[in-house]
Order: sequence, then structure tokens, then C-alpha cells
Amino acid sequence: IAKEVAKLLEMKAQLGGDEGKHKFVLKTPKGTRDYSPKQMAIRERVFNAIINCFKRHGAEVIDTPVFELKETLTGKYGEDSKLIYDLKDQGGELLSLRYDLTVPFARYLAMNKITNIKRYHIAKVYRRDNPATTRGRYREFYQCDFDIAGQFDPMIPDAECLKIVHEILSDLQLGDFLIKVNDRRILDGMFAVCGVPDSKFRTICSSVDKLDKMPWEEVRSEMVGEKGLSPEAADRIGEYVQLHGGLDLIEQLLQDPKLSQNKLAKEGLGDMKLLFEYLTLFGITGKISFDLSLARGLDYYTGVIFEAVLLQQENDHVEEPVSVGSVAGGGRYDGLVGMFDPKGRKVPCVGVSIGIERIFSILEQRVEASEEKIRTTETQVLVASAQKKLLEERLRLISELWDAGIKAEILYKKNPKLLNQLQYCEDTGIPLVAIVGEQELKDGVVKLRVVATREEVNIRRESLIEEIRMRTSQ
Amino acid sequence: IAKEVAKLLEMKAQLGGDEGKHKFVLKTPKGTRDYSPKQMAIRERVFNAIINCFKRHGAEVIDTPVFELKETLTGKYGEDSKLIYDLKDQGGELLSLRYDLTVPFARYLAMNKITNIKRYHIAKVYRRDNPATTRGRYREFYQCDFDIAGQFDPMIPDAECLKIVHEILSDLQLGDFLIKVNDRRILDGMFAVCGVPDSKFRTICSSVDKLDKMPWEEVRSEMVGEKGLSPEAADRIGEYVQLHGGLDLIEQLLQDPKLSQNKLAKEGLGDMKLLFEYLTLFGITGKISFDLSLARGLDYYTGVIFEAVLLQQENDHVEEPVSVGSVAGGGRYDGLVGMFDPKGRKVPCVGVSIGIERIFSILEQRVEASEEKIRTTETQVLVASAQKKLLEERLRLISELWDAGIKAEILYKKNPKLLNQLQYCEDTGIPLVAIVGEQELKDGVVKLRVVATREEVNIRRESLIEEIRMRTSQ
Repeated sequence: IAKEVAKLLEMKAQLGGDEGKHKFVLKTPKGTRDYSPKQMAIRERVFNAIINCFKRHGAEVIDTPVFELKETLTGKYGEDSKLIYDLKDQGGELLSLRYDLTVPFARYLAMNKITNIKRYHIAKVYRRDNPATTRGRYREFYQCDFDIAGQFDPMIPDAECLKIVHEILSDLQLGDFLIKVNDRRILDGMFAVCGVPDSKFRTICSSVDKLDKMPWEEVRSEMVGEKGLSPEAADRIGEYVQLHGGLDLIEQLLQDPKLSQNKLAKEGLGDMKLLFEYLTLFGITGKISFDLSLARGLDYYTGVIFEAVLLQQENDHVEEPVSVGSVAGGGRYDGLVGMFDPKGRKVPCVGVSIGIERIFSILEQRVEASEEKIRTTETQVLVASAQKKLLEERLRLISELWDAGIKAEILYKKNPKLLNQLQYCEDTGIPLVAIVGEQELKDGVVKLRVVATREEVNIRRESLIEEIRMRTSQ
Repeated sequence: IAKEVAKLLEMKAQLGGDEGKHKFVLKTPKGTRDYSPKQMAIRERVFNAIINCFKRHGAEVIDTPVFELKETLTGKYGEDSKLIYDLKDQGGELLSLRYDLTVPFARYLAMNKITNIKRYHIAKVYRRDNPATTRGRYREFYQCDFDIAGQFDPMIPDAECLKIVHEILSDLQLGDFLIKVNDRRILDGMFAVCGVPDSKFRTICSSVDKLDKMPWEEVRSEMVGEKGLSPEAADRIGEYVQLHGGLDLIEQLLQDPKLSQNKLAKEGLGDMKLLFEYLTLFGITGKISFDLSLARGLDYYTGVIFEAVLLQQENDHVEEPVSVGSVAGGGRYDGLVGMFDPKGRKVPCVGVSIGIERIFSILEQRVEASEEKIRTTETQVLVASAQKKLLEERLRLISELWDAGIKAEILYKKNPKLLNQLQYCEDTGIPLVAIVGEQELKDGVVKLRVVATREEVNIRRESLIEEIRMRTSQ
């Protein structure tokens, strides 16, 4: 009997399996999405603004594979390492999807022994986070990175990175923003003078990093409870991380009796002062805040760190509020390339990463609200027919237009109605219709119709290409 | 003793492990590569040619995630399914990297209930193949896909896909090429009249697909030996697959006593005739060959299939010969969307995929051979100084230029030598140098130097931006 039951259960499972085939779940993986043509049109606008800025600053562009050897990513991300996507071991190398573009960049520099480059890289990265996708956060998302690698005089490339963030956020007109700046050396010096043991620097830094999402009390109890920091040390940190300001605060801290005695902090504060001098020359200090609570989660930063946040909701008429959060971040990582070099040779680097998903969400909502009509094609002319049996003539004409570089479409019907053809132009924003008809063919002309005005003119066939070019050039 | 030995071995393994850290393998995963700035510049040229063509034909653009639910890819690729990359099960959904852009497109259509779209999609796909990367074949590679979905009159969209392949390959000037065309219905009809049992159609089709890499004798022995086909059936197939030609061959086969009796084959041949009529109107039949040996490996094709091959090596002076292989392929897949639709509703589709890696390899070798100098940045002007202590002035000036949209760079040194600054322009192709010096500052001018001619003129500071624009506009 048991055998028979097992057989029946197996048969049932098979039937269930077949049924399952049709109950297929039709979705993209968790935390990912498709981009529709309309979304792509908005995305292209954002990319163009960013790429234009990167090119304005003389950057080259590179690309790297979407996955790296697993060991390439090991030990670079601190507590965030658990969010890395691994590939299945199907024989051969162990691979992981890239978590950011910075570590692959450092691997690229070490592998090719490059000691001097200014490059940008725009590509998708992957994090097994539990993001609120309604707020424009995803598991698969684009990063737009600009980095300067090389041994240079202090703070000149660092200042340029901040100028770039300022230019891009201004250009995209996302509303008011603030760029918070700090330095890992100032943080480490602060931890030291507050009485944090060396071995706890990184983990306490991770706690400070949560201050943008949690109140101080919670962060403090994480430091004392989970991480075993003394309450006194935590309280001393609590005082420092409240501070933010400009050149005046830097001067004040340079006079701070404890901090000024710490070598690291003093170095960091000296460079911060220099940075602010350069930012003054760039005329952008109005949107920069030296902020001791800024920590940045990643392990590899060694100097200046920064993060840009949007200060208010751009469009008050949007019902679902868009998260007002970080839209760019970066910093200096002088040790990362050396981690990949067989002889540990260092290449100092500083860079910025623009988080375009949030920016994209904001612009998408703005387009929705404004009811702006966005064209998703660039078609200049529809080749149409006024009577039946003119498919051959349409194909002949459109072929001529394509070969002349004109962007042209036809409806894929043998005998489409003229009304349907005109409606297609209305729907998709095609400005011109080239109409072939029996009379026009006899006369050697094509009737050119302007969709917006309904104006129609007969154009000699041999002048048609020039006429379309003239009427659609901007 | 055994215990002690085990302990020692363990210690040794640990030491080995630590040592391994420094012996880190510095490479990209097997079958992948980085793109350097110079390679990116070439890649951009190829992409632009392809995107321009897709836009000329009125296509919208979409994007999908790099991975899909594993079950989305299941049962779509036949014998090639073993080449799919799976992600590790880290809890949650089972995921696979996309194998092509066609299946994600079909999933996108079904999921969004789209029955009518013309779109392109350019993105990387992943195959665990053992490719010869020297011949431009990789495990991570770009596909550039153009597809037309919708219920239309026969062969009009199919003909446009072939026109697109013809335009792109002509535009890229890769040398002579041939587009082979066949139809799955003709193949299946042929299998039927040759005596292949229905159940063996797909697997025998896979064997025929190998004819571009293997001689007929090997393919025949695979059919008879591995796949258990009768020798007589194989020999009958052998006769058909030798045939290739144009309209004349189609007419001949329409008269073939066996084939003309088969419903599927007759349908396929009728449509093939119509296709050739449209291709004649497009004026491209000179490079099209109706070829009964063309099979295409993928399971999902249902009608016309095609593949473009380069016929000869473009540049005889290149030492390492570039593979003369397939650079584009595609076909009609009317059932794929229905596989995703809960009610099995079909959306007929036809599309083409351009394989840019081989094209890119050919163009890269051509650039190497020609010693053409490729600029990797677009910088218009270097802001330089003639004396020391002018960093502040350089920063002030370059900030003005950036804000005016001028592409400008400085060297990241406090006091760079003028010679080094001029050398940098020579190396990177920057055409202009804006030189600030003490005298120029007093006079309210900037010295503008043309790198190519060494000509120098003093320009009033307030006219500098206009002067640079004028001199660098094309």
C-alpha cells in the first residue's frame, strides 16, 4: 500500500508540476524593473546631463564586466559584504556581481599598471538589499562614477569632484541640495580622542553612518550595547557629531585642545581648510557643509568623504512623496589599488558616484504631474498611401528615404486607411506624412502633409529628401 | 601522532591561505574583458551607427534587468540551456543571467499586455560557452536587438529586418557580406518529406545548424549515430541542404513534387517568394541568399530565419586573422510571447540581433593597423600657467569655463611647468591652451595658444569663452 501511495503522490506531483507551468509568475526579479520607452526617454536626458558634465571635465570612459572573481570583492565593503550577489558554482571560477564601480576600477588600474587616469563609468551594480522601490531604491541600479587616480597636489582633484556634483545637481534642477563633507582622518582622530579603541574604529564608524536614518539615541545604544563601547566615549562622540559648518568650524576644531593634538585629525583639518579655499574659488561653498556626522559606510575611504542630499521635495503637487535622500556620494581611497597590486604599490584615488535612480524617480514623477508629452521615437516622416494597392510604391519610397538617412516609418499593412495612418502620426508625434497616390505617381510628385497644421503641398519626388530635411531640422 | 599531524596540516593550510591572499589572481573572469578608453571610443562608433539605424526605422528603446527568474528562461533555448549562468541561491528567488534579449522582450510584452511595439534594446548577455576570445567571442557580450511585435500583413516587418541588417553592415564598411535566409516551416516540411519523425524535428534541426562549422559527413553521422535517424532520411536531407539561391530556387522548390505537397513547406515557400519581392523593392537581393542549410539553434523560431556572415577578411595586412563568421541573426518567433501569457495569447514577433563583438574586433584591428590616432576625450582647452603661484587664477578661470559649458582641464599640480602642460595637450589631442601669467592678469587678457600651429594671441578675458567656442566648433 505504502508503495502505491508513493506512486500516486509522485503522479500527483507531476500533474501539479505541469499545472505549475501555466501558473507561471510573470514578473521581474525582486528589486528590479523594466524601463518602458517613455522611462527610457527620461533616463536618457539624465544620462546626457551627467555624461556632458563628465566630458566637460575631460574624463575618458571605460567599461568592466558585470561580474568579478569573488575574491576581488572580498574584504572591500565591511559590513555591507553580506549584500553581494554570488553566482552559482557551475564549475570553474567563483564569481560575484559587482557591488559598485569603484572596486572594479581599482582592480582595472592594478591589473593594467595604470597610475594616472581620469575616467567615468556608467553601469549597473547589484546589492541584495531590501529596498523601498517606491522611493527609487533598487537591487539593480545604475551608478555614474567619475574618478581621478594619480599622485597630485592635495585637494585639487578632490575639489573638482565636489564641483562636478554641484554642476550636475544644478543642471538637473532637482531643487535645493546640500553637499556634506567630512574626512576619514578627522573621524578616526575624533574616535581616538573620544577613547574608542583602535580595533573598534571601523565598526563605530558604521554606527555613525546610520545617523542620517536613526536618531542619536539609537545610534548611541548600538555603540554601547551591541558594540561594547564605553558610555563616556559614546557621549564624547555624541558632542562632536552634532557639529557642522564651514571654514569657521574648521578653524574652531584646529584650536580644539584634544583634536588638535591628534596627528590624523590635524592633517585632515588642514586639508579640509585647503579644500574650502578651492571651493571658494569655484564659488560653491554656499551648498557645502563640513559635517562631523558624515561617515560613509564603505571600508576603503582614507581621506575626504562627501554625500549630496536633496533638501526638499521639488514638486508639492505630487501625492506620493519622493524620498528626500542621498543622490551622490564619494571620497578619497588611497589604499584600494594597493590592495590589488602584488607589490602593494599605491595609486591615490578620489571619486564621486551619482545615484541616478532617485533622480530618475523625481523626474519621472515630475513628468507625470506636468502631463508633458514625451516623444519616444525620432521619426521625421510617415510614408502613407491614399488608395489601395500602393504597398510597393510605399516600400520603394521609404527605402529611398532610409538610404538618404531620413527617419521614416510605414504601417505594416498592405492597404491601411489614410485616417489610421494620420492617427498614427498624431499618437506618436511624427511631424510629416509623405502621401503617395495614383495621381501623384503620374505627376512625379509626393504630397507632403504637415501633421500639426494639416497643410499639404505637392513636392517633386527628386526634391522630397531635401524638403523633409529642411522642414525637420532644428 | 595522527592528531598532531592533522593539527600541523591545518596550520600549514592556514599559512598557505594567508600567503594566497597576496598571490591574488589579478584578472577578469574567464571569457570577459575590460574596455579601455581607446576601445570604448571604437565601441561608441559602432553603437552610434547601429542606434542611428534603429532610430531611422522608428524604433523605441526599452531596458530589462540583467537577470530574470530562472523559470522565465526555462524551455526557451533547447540544447543551449546548459550554457545559462545561474545565480547562487542566497534565499529568495532563483535567478539566472539573461541568455539573450529576445526572451526578456517576450516576457516584457506578456507582462505589460503589449501587442504592438517596435523597439530596440542594446545590452550585455551571458553564455557559459568556451569561446575563442581571440576571435571576438566572449561569455559576456553585447547584443543589439531590433524587434517588431504585432499582427501585421505577411513579410513586411520581416523584410524591414533584413533591410536593417543590410544598412548596418554597409554603413560599418566591414567588407563584403551575405545574408542567408531560410524558414522554419520550410525546414520542418523538408524534414517531414525526408522521413524524419515529428519528435526528432528539433534535434535534427540542431544538427543542421552545425553545418557552418562542420562538414556534411560529420553532421550526417551525428544524425544517424547519436540521434538515431535512418541513413536514407539523412541522405535525403543531405541533398536539400546543398541548395541555395534566389527567386529561381524558390520557384523550383514550389514545383518540387514532394515539398510542394507539404502544407508547412508550401506556406513557407509562398512567404519566401513574397519576402524576395519586397527585398527587390528595397534593392538588396544582391546580398541575400535563400539557403536550405540555415537552421539557427534556438527553439523559439517559427517562420523566417536569417543570419549575416562576412565573406572575406577586410584587411589583409593584419597578421592575426579575424574570424569570418556570423555578425547578425534573427527570425520570426510567433509563439514565444504566448508561452508567457496566462491565457496563451500570441503576439507575432520578428527581430534581428547584431553581434557587435566580432564587428568590434575587426574595427579594433583595423585601427591598430592604420595607426590612426583616436582621441579618448573631448577637451577643448587646457588652462595653464606660465609662472609659479598661479593655481588660484587657474582654478578661477577654469571654473568660469566649466560654467559656460566649455570642456576644460588643468594639471593637478600647484606649480606645473609650462612645457609639461603643453606636452599634455600634445599627448591627449587638446587643441587649445589658455595661459594665465602675471602680465596677462595685469592686462586683463588670457594668452590663447593653438597647439597644432603654436600660434599665440592675447584674448580679452571677457571674450575668451566666445573665442574658444568659435575656434573649436566644427
